[in-house]
Amino acid sequence: MHNMERLFRSVADKGHVCVGLDTAIEHLPPELGSDAGAVLDFNKALVDATCDVAACFKVQIAYYEELGLAGLSVYAETLAYIRKRGHLVIADIKRGDIADTAERYARAHFHGEFQADFVTLSPYLGMDSLEPWIRTAEGKGAFVLMRTSNKGMRDFQCLKVDSGGEARPLYRAVGDRLAELAKQARLAGQPGDSGYGPFGAVVGCTEREEAAEIRRAYPDLFFLIPGYGAQGGGAADAALLLREGNGGVVNASRSILTAWKGKTSPAGLSPLAFAAEAAREEALKMRDAIRGAVAG
Amino acid sequence: MHNMERLFRSVADKGHVCVGLDTAIEHLPPELGSDAGAVLDFNKALVDATCDVAACFKVQIAYYEELGLAGLSVYAETLAYIRKRGHLVIADIKRGDIADTAERYARAHFHGEFQADFVTLSPYLGMDSLEPWIRTAEGKGAFVLMRTSNKGMRDFQCLKVDSGGEARPLYRAVGDRLAELAKQARLAGQPGDSGYGPFGAVVGCTEREEAAEIRRAYPDLFFLIPGYGAQGGGAADAALLLREGNGGVVNASRSILTAWKGKTSPAGLSPLAFAAEAAREEALKMRDAIRGAVAG
Repeated sequence: MHNMERLFRSVADKGHVCVGLDTAIEHLPPELGSDAGAVLDFNKALVDATCDVAACFKVQIAYYEELGLAGLSVYAETLAYIRKRGHLVIADIKRGDIADTAERYARAHFHGEFQADFVTLSPYLGMDSLEPWIRTAEGKGAFVLMRTSNKGMRDFQCLKVDSGGEARPLYRAVGDRLAELAKQARLAGQPGDSGYGPFGAVVGCTEREEAAEIRRAYPDLFFLIPGYGAQGGGAADAALLLREGNGGVVNASRSILTAWKGKTSPAGLSPLAFAAEAAREEALKMRDAIRGAVAG
Repeated sequence: MHNMERLFRSVADKGHVCVGLDTAIEHLPPELGSDAGAVLDFNKALVDATCDVAACFKVQIAYYEELGLAGLSVYAETLAYIRKRGHLVIADIKRGDIADTAERYARAHFHGEFQADFVTLSPYLGMDSLEPWIRTAEGKGAFVLMRTSNKGMRDFQCLKVDSGGEARPLYRAVGDRLAELAKQARLAGQPGDSGYGPFGAVVGCTEREEAAEIRRAYPDLFFLIPGYGAQGGGAADAALLLREGNGGVVNASRSILTAWKGKTSPAGLSPLAFAAEAAREEALKMRDAIRGAVAG
């Protein structure tokens, strides 16, 4: 069973929340300290507190690179901690490079010291830059950037390209190629019951326009959905990108990581335990809001 | 003086060769061993041997990530070794992410433990993903992917987009936005004598078609030119992307790193010294070939 099938089942079981561990030092309760070790303690506590309400986790490598080698060590330990407990983790690395280089990256992030269950990839270099990841996946999965959640996505992703005589946004041209991959995976007998291929797409929930159309156009693509909360997307926006109550995970990072801020810790609870509990409540609230939007 | 100006002067002084330290274990003479430490020894010897014929160096991070944390430690040490000796180094990291994340990456690769003189960036997310790099550059530079050297670049980069009523390849839309950045830098008084802005573009030399047109269209963009040698580009192709004998560096990795292969080491020369000497000869040959193509 490939990881996208596992993720599909996890969503059915626990809801649509992907907890984003974009853990910056300033997100930590100050009592924890301000080094990479404090980040690891925080991550572990949050994983333990949210794992029954999170379909999966996502770790954004930039926040660890910022801390240098010590940070990248914590990055690897965070991935290992999540995977050892049987939970799924997406390495948000947005790699995109020529085939020889992609093969090196795939060894590092699918099989090496930075092993994750999924990676995120950037499509600008074209399909031969994805091929080494597909060839060496062995059950792992990926989410390829299609329509991102930032304002700048209008600059290139929304440019109209000539596609079979029809002018459509660039992100649809990317989506079409990903849909072909999913079809090939289906023909190769790869998907399980869910029907989703192992390589999905990143589609932000910050733009309502065309969200339903994107969902209809790509029934075989599982979506990683950023943009919820701090970036402006709501549960109803995210629900437009789901299909039959599944088919996507919705990422939230800052709202969950910093849910402890501005609240008073009850007596007897350590700052770390309080932050973890606040994160859990925030994730629960988000899970229920999305389930409500899907049902309604 | 910003780094693109320094690079311009380095090209005028030493020629157009960018030595790519995409150092895989299989590129090393077997006598050196097969761990990350051997990669560092090899890199140092190649830097010492080629620094008077190389305009700059480029380090592809994927080859180091493949070796895990030990590899990334060697990555950081290689960058530091090059910079301490006053040479310029491009971190080939092809980052492209939303602004908050880009800011973390910029701290790591412009100012932190992985500090380099230039980075490579991917434009798919749009201009707001470049902004944190620009804002925090403090003299550093970047090369943004425009038209890459791999076959897959046709998939998206060459799609025709509607740009002011005219259908032009996507990579030209990217180039136009980079040219605007260079113009802003000029208006801000940033460039030195060369006139090039601190943010240039990656343009491969594997496609002759439109190369001269691209060069004419973007006089203010300094180019990082991959695709030479193993990927099929020649000196004449690379020369089409230069301007008045400058305006670009041409990267070669494998041909230089593995120049020692298939040759017999003279008696008394260590395998490492021989590999370094062979790399130097290859870089010299390449430098002269490009200079010849520019002159001819």
